[in-house]
Amino acid sequence: MRNVGIVGIGQCPVAEHWDRSLRDIATEAVTEALHDAGDPTPGALYVGNMLAGQLTGQENVATAVADAAGLLPIEAIKIEAACAAGGAAIRAAYLTVASGAHDCVLAVGVEKMTDHLNDSVSAALATAADADYEASHGVSFVALNALLMRRYMHDHGVSREEFAPFSVNAHRNAAGNRHAMFRDEISIDDYMASPVVADPIVILDSAAICDGAAALVLCAVDDDHPYRHPPIRIAGSACATDTLGLSERRDPMRWQAVVDSADAAYRQAGVGPADIDAFELHDAFTIVSALSLEACGFAEPGDGVRLAADGAIRREGDVPIATMGGLKGRGHPIGASGVYQAVEAIHQLRGTAGEAQIPDARTVMIQSVGGSGSVAVTHILQA
Amino acid sequence: MRNVGIVGIGQCPVAEHWDRSLRDIATEAVTEALHDAGDPTPGALYVGNMLAGQLTGQENVATAVADAAGLLPIEAIKIEAACAAGGAAIRAAYLTVASGAHDCVLAVGVEKMTDHLNDSVSAALATAADADYEASHGVSFVALNALLMRRYMHDHGVSREEFAPFSVNAHRNAAGNRHAMFRDEISIDDYMASPVVADPIVILDSAAICDGAAALVLCAVDDDHPYRHPPIRIAGSACATDTLGLSERRDPMRWQAVVDSADAAYRQAGVGPADIDAFELHDAFTIVSALSLEACGFAEPGDGVRLAADGAIRREGDVPIATMGGLKGRGHPIGASGVYQAVEAIHQLRGTAGEAQIPDARTVMIQSVGGSGSVAVTHILQA
Repeated sequence: MRNVGIVGIGQCPVAEHWDRSLRDIATEAVTEALHDAGDPTPGALYVGNMLAGQLTGQENVATAVADAAGLLPIEAIKIEAACAAGGAAIRAAYLTVASGAHDCVLAVGVEKMTDHLNDSVSAALATAADADYEASHGVSFVALNALLMRRYMHDHGVSREEFAPFSVNAHRNAAGNRHAMFRDEISIDDYMASPVVADPIVILDSAAICDGAAALVLCAVDDDHPYRHPPIRIAGSACATDTLGLSERRDPMRWQAVVDSADAAYRQAGVGPADIDAFELHDAFTIVSALSLEACGFAEPGDGVRLAADGAIRREGDVPIATMGGLKGRGHPIGASGVYQAVEAIHQLRGTAGEAQIPDARTVMIQSVGGSGSVAVTHILQA
Repeated sequence: MRNVGIVGIGQCPVAEHWDRSLRDIATEAVTEALHDAGDPTPGALYVGNMLAGQLTGQENVATAVADAAGLLPIEAIKIEAACAAGGAAIRAAYLTVASGAHDCVLAVGVEKMTDHLNDSVSAALATAADADYEASHGVSFVALNALLMRRYMHDHGVSREEFAPFSVNAHRNAAGNRHAMFRDEISIDDYMASPVVADPIVILDSAAICDGAAALVLCAVDDDHPYRHPPIRIAGSACATDTLGLSERRDPMRWQAVVDSADAAYRQAGVGPADIDAFELHDAFTIVSALSLEACGFAEPGDGVRLAADGAIRREGDVPIATMGGLKGRGHPIGASGVYQAVEAIHQLRGTAGEAQIPDARTVMIQSVGGSGSVAVTHILQA
């Protein structure tokens, strides 16, 4: 396999873009990423997206983006893995460059979720669950995560308040990120006063419905390269799956797909949890942060919340997460989130993260999780 | 790049499977393909599918198939490129094996379209067109193809009857295929008496709404292999795009994405149209057959229909197409069709096509087209 690196990044602000279409925001991200890379000509385009067919009435999404961004006749394919679509698009781009089929490839994540009734969006999101055995009973995605959070609280004697630091940290870190949707800091009191969505999950546990697009330029790094920035190497890349339905798991609190994809990525990169300088995890809900930290070897079962309580997850801590706001603070435009994570990781590794900068960041892990942990994609990036 | 071959094939009959779910039929195809290959353990699964989010309420489709087929914790990703999703899934699997990331990979195509109101299916299919500038005006997919057929008839002085041999050939060739949906031969009189769908397109110009699943096992072929069949080599593999909207084309009658993807595949394989022993093209409508034959160098513009009239497209002709029924006779379960084409091509190249066998078939080309020619994926397979 050829070595593969990232040489260009682009993103549009995460927001409610009622005045802009899916292809508009994707084009902004693509154009910025290509310019950042020194305007190469990419050979393929992978678009991570989950909901455009249901919400925008647009499948053939990769062709739509290729056309709008002026990239025709480029090879263009849409990649879907529920909320892990962004990470999966990066992986598809990585494998294509690694194969030698193309030297330079775009990975784009885009999602347009606002300007629709909230009920339609909830129903569309529930298609990431098991349609035949979960969603058919009316359970929403928030409800599935509420079951997990309640069980975690029961198993480990944890109170709701102990999840607050995840949200406080994310919002604090988003404050200086001009691409983030929520730039106001919050307090534990704000968290405790936040309205319930699906007990025990409150609004401030949950990533918001939003629009966004982010893009990466990936290239082969074995040879001299014509790009503007030195490539940030993809040292590990892996995807794994678990049962589609939560009730099918032997232990619903151990996210085996997350374990498996992280383990494979660690092995490829030759690193372990102690080597990770920052971890952009899939904090769609605070419970997911706790479970992901545990699944990736940063904490024992039940101790994920302690990393939040003792400040280890802060930028100055041992396991910085959501360094520029994460899914909670930056926003979680489903298929785009994994690519936003990569853009932010590249900023950390280039040393251009501004006030979010982790000193001497050399190794950053990013992770997209789809469904209730039914699919996970992990990448380890190294400067 | 590593050389890649196909060593296992599986398919369920194309039909109206009202009693079986998407994951049921996909599992049948996967199980058969793995058994055919000698029961290897695949490292990744790519699922070509377009409509499950809209029609079945199931995204995260690849995880659903991985789970149902007993393949966990396999890497699993859904691939969408409108009606070219099947071909695109093969290409993703090909690139993954070529990269060295996995030695053995599954490509699956599956679509469940029946058991829904026809209006919903038509609306879902229209998401392959340009949602903002075509579908928003109410144009359906059949209507877009009707515009093309009318223009072709006008440009080249061709009558409706001259498209009949495409349909007659497809139905004749499907007659002996037990996986085909339509196994009754039809006459030119039947074609002429067929009800109009969108003038000038009649029912017998059009591939039907149906359910189906097909699967392939791809492997690296450089080394000794443990598989039951000698690998059929993927000698060419390419994808290209054109404008999403038909009205944006300089010449809507020249399908540039088809031209580009075929040219690239020819180049990789070191062959030309004269070397192709059979061509499984994307005959979703008879007009697509004519345009595809022209775009791939088998006929000059306006002469595609002549290849049908003079019998060149028959099994015993110079350019056999739809040798086991094609999309018209076998059926066109959208995201599965490209994989069915590959299964049939492998039968031709193994010499196991039965009464459909093309004598001494050594090189077979298969092609998936999405939208109104806005994306095309071409593979050339060689024994």
